[in-house]
Amino acid sequence: MSGARNISNALRRARLPRPRVHLRPVLPQSPLTHATALRSFSSTPLRASTKEIKYTSEAYNIQRDPKFAEVTADDVAFFKSLLGSESAVVDGVTADATDDIEPFNSDWMRKYRGHTRLVLKPQSTEEVSKVLKYCNERKLAVVPQGGNTGLVGGSVPVFDEIVVNTSRMNQIRSFDQASGVLVADAGVILETADSYLAERGHLFPLDLGAKGSCHIGGNVSTNAGGLRLLRYGSLHGTVLGLEAVLPDGTIVDSLSTLRKNNTGYDLKQLFIGSEGTIGLVTAVSILCPPRPRAVNVAYFGLESFEHVQKAYLEAKNQLSEILSAFELMDGRSQGLVHTSTGNKYPLEGEYPFYCLIETSGSNAEHDMAKLEAFLEHVMGEGIVADGVLAQDETQFQALWRWREGITESLSHLGGTYKYDVSIPLAELYQLVEDCNSRLTEMGFVGDDDSFPVRAVVGYGHMGDSNLHLNVSVRQYNKEVEKAIEPWVYEWIQKRNGSISAEHGLGIAKRQYIGYSQNETMVNLMKQLKGLYDPNGIMNPYKYI
Amino acid sequence: MSGARNISNALRRARLPRPRVHLRPVLPQSPLTHATALRSFSSTPLRASTKEIKYTSEAYNIQRDPKFAEVTADDVAFFKSLLGSESAVVDGVTADATDDIEPFNSDWMRKYRGHTRLVLKPQSTEEVSKVLKYCNERKLAVVPQGGNTGLVGGSVPVFDEIVVNTSRMNQIRSFDQASGVLVADAGVILETADSYLAERGHLFPLDLGAKGSCHIGGNVSTNAGGLRLLRYGSLHGTVLGLEAVLPDGTIVDSLSTLRKNNTGYDLKQLFIGSEGTIGLVTAVSILCPPRPRAVNVAYFGLESFEHVQKAYLEAKNQLSEILSAFELMDGRSQGLVHTSTGNKYPLEGEYPFYCLIETSGSNAEHDMAKLEAFLEHVMGEGIVADGVLAQDETQFQALWRWREGITESLSHLGGTYKYDVSIPLAELYQLVEDCNSRLTEMGFVGDDDSFPVRAVVGYGHMGDSNLHLNVSVRQYNKEVEKAIEPWVYEWIQKRNGSISAEHGLGIAKRQYIGYSQNETMVNLMKQLKGLYDPNGIMNPYKYI
Repeated sequence: MSGARNISNALRRARLPRPRVHLRPVLPQSPLTHATALRSFSSTPLRASTKEIKYTSEAYNIQRDPKFAEVTADDVAFFKSLLGSESAVVDGVTADATDDIEPFNSDWMRKYRGHTRLVLKPQSTEEVSKVLKYCNERKLAVVPQGGNTGLVGGSVPVFDEIVVNTSRMNQIRSFDQASGVLVADAGVILETADSYLAERGHLFPLDLGAKGSCHIGGNVSTNAGGLRLLRYGSLHGTVLGLEAVLPDGTIVDSLSTLRKNNTGYDLKQLFIGSEGTIGLVTAVSILCPPRPRAVNVAYFGLESFEHVQKAYLEAKNQLSEILSAFELMDGRSQGLVHTSTGNKYPLEGEYPFYCLIETSGSNAEHDMAKLEAFLEHVMGEGIVADGVLAQDETQFQALWRWREGITESLSHLGGTYKYDVSIPLAELYQLVEDCNSRLTEMGFVGDDDSFPVRAVVGYGHMGDSNLHLNVSVRQYNKEVEKAIEPWVYEWIQKRNGSISAEHGLGIAKRQYIGYSQNETMVNLMKQLKGLYDPNGIMNPYKYI
Repeated sequence: MSGARNISNALRRARLPRPRVHLRPVLPQSPLTHATALRSFSSTPLRASTKEIKYTSEAYNIQRDPKFAEVTADDVAFFKSLLGSESAVVDGVTADATDDIEPFNSDWMRKYRGHTRLVLKPQSTEEVSKVLKYCNERKLAVVPQGGNTGLVGGSVPVFDEIVVNTSRMNQIRSFDQASGVLVADAGVILETADSYLAERGHLFPLDLGAKGSCHIGGNVSTNAGGLRLLRYGSLHGTVLGLEAVLPDGTIVDSLSTLRKNNTGYDLKQLFIGSEGTIGLVTAVSILCPPRPRAVNVAYFGLESFEHVQKAYLEAKNQLSEILSAFELMDGRSQGLVHTSTGNKYPLEGEYPFYCLIETSGSNAEHDMAKLEAFLEHVMGEGIVADGVLAQDETQFQALWRWREGITESLSHLGGTYKYDVSIPLAELYQLVEDCNSRLTEMGFVGDDDSFPVRAVVGYGHMGDSNLHLNVSVRQYNKEVEKAIEPWVYEWIQKRNGSISAEHGLGIAKRQYIGYSQNETMVNLMKQLKGLYDPNGIMNPYKYI
């Protein structure tokens, strides 16, 4: 599964005797085929029937800002001359290039769709600089785009913004074995970077489902969180340096490879998570840890969210430095994976909650001893009702698919309203309960096709207090959406949570920043946007 | 030793049999007395003979900027009325308060000295807001000051800037056991915060020699690195939220306790490491890891820097997730500690290089097994020539004093020119060799008192590629200084290093930022400074 987590590739897997606690082996199941698994995250989004996707401008009732110029044949000639190569310009302005253009105009979830007629694929930072400088002077709006795997429409144009895609900036610039620092172009695919590091005994400190398609420049621009944040920390800590281009063409060369550098303001931080609204990230320098030699994964069934919380605290306490993931999946989310894939459940009974725990360490024997002690404790105390422990690589991958396959399974079943939120741990799952009650009481939820909502499911990164609330619908439905929003944002605001933990704001949450940031913060952001992008050409119509 | 590292307080220490490798126990030695140890880091710097310290304005030939107003009796009356309490205002304007004022006018190294006549100690963020707003309107310059333990003069006034000291903002606001998130006022002393966390099974993710005096607000404002960065990462990753006041009185409330929050620009990052030049940090929210249950420390003698590099790579590889410190000390630095303290060396022979390795983990037995395997390897391969492993808490502390006592030992012996730099690992120690050769050839270095330079020593955080080059002088000497600067900065620039890894720029390096930041970066910093502090009242005469 190209888009999946293959952390243990090239690793020596722990092949240890079964633990003493009663844990059953993973049941055999038919693995997802490569083609199926790739579908959602193909680097070329499906071209068929993109016309069915509603235009973002209509769905969100957005008007084109007349201050932006329209792309002319002269502009296209300039870009063709600048970028040289035929493949660097997808020209829908002077030619009919609808089929070639459409993949850049829409997202893989089929939720957002723009009207761009020009895609540029520069190959160097200097080319990006010249492109942006030209656009800025001509007041041509621009959308930076990496792998286009985002979930909030941040990398898709709304009107005729020029897409500047980083796919041709895909070179690894350097790697230092002693320090573990990788320097790479923005357009390097995350999985490519990780495979390169695997061969050198290191690990990219970020992992997420879209790794087979997403670009590391996009990861940094959206401050992607993912599966390894619990262990390796956020990109604000691991990104050591960054190269970016401001709208006026200024190249911000802050591509330090030093772990410590206290010489003035840490300006690179502003580009991490700002979703291409103040500049375009062209290269990244990032600190990569040694690749763990032993990786284990266990999958549990639990009777209540209170049990999940207890299990988390025990894992944090007992597994401590080797805990690399603590993922939560509710019963409904696992039911959807079951329905979608036809795979047998890993456990015999069904439970309202499931957890996936991963350990990564340097000594297989020590890790297994810690894991065994932990398992004995949580099963002995009745915190965990049942569990399995992967015994080999196949089982390891199979268990992870029950977590990583949720997004994809949902996409097979229809539309999904996705909410990616941070909430203090104690109330993390209450949001799912409350949302489900609300939609059920309003008559939206049911098993047969007359109900718009198939299920309200919750899963996410428990260790980061990060919940994914997903409302699976048979088709996108304004009534359902109105029942959820802004109710869900108000719910989160009351708990001082975040309405976007890791996905960003993009188009989807463009109007909701006020639920997680106060007026002063929003004004300070607007002030910075005005400073760096006075013409407002960078990723317009989004959250700022 | 209040200013020392007491990581293992309240921890169950590993009391395991001696490792199989030939390691001798730590030799008994007379521990530093509490009073001695405290001297350098006393929260009230020594008052005696401050008049001997040269004024910074003279030493650095700085002119007072006439745009700043002078503090009047009316201003003092306003501040007294605003802050209420007698102890909140140290008034040298309308009264003679020289003795009370001087500790705030100079630093513990006795290198920097200002002319302030007014110290304010607000007790709340609202008070800070009113103070800054007033100062901004009146164009009164301000120096934010925490524990005043910095090494570059960043928290000391140059002329009559008003010192705004955070010592009365010293409340821990909240701690969440489940997430490990601590929220505390800027003026909480680092050691106080860590002790509070120790009682709750957690650890402050930063540790440094001045912990007994430094304020966490100061740590964040200077982006302090210290001893634990190798393991727990930089403050850019661990600080989750921050509250600060801008010069116009605006309260920047970004005090999130969420591990993930992707809702717009991460503005709090701008205050981390900007040394109080764009605002005053009033509170911090920080992610604290579980306190390790087992901590071990070993001390090695090595024959060359090549051996040190090999030992580091082996430690990184074999100790991996439990490695919490890899510190380098050269033979001369340990000789100075020996001379200053009279303590016997931990090892029998003398070596050109020493390393201190610390492990922190959750399982004493596992950690010791890893450490033993590592020790067997590095001693068996001849990478390490000799070594000792602490067997109990006393030995643990004693070994750490050979690393942490360097700064203090140097301060007992006269003056020190301090350079805190990042250099790629392979060339890390070459700077010390080259500097020593240069000063020796110029006739500055010698054993008797006729030579200005006592020794050129190197030590630091090997794991972070962070070297402290210290030139120990019998008295500060302009000729010596000119021989070192800007030569040292040019040396670093050639290797793309940083002229300030963790200490910051302050006064000491105010003119040298160009050696580690290009013109574009410096201009972008100036632009931001102008945006947030148009009157330039925040910490003037420093690096920006």
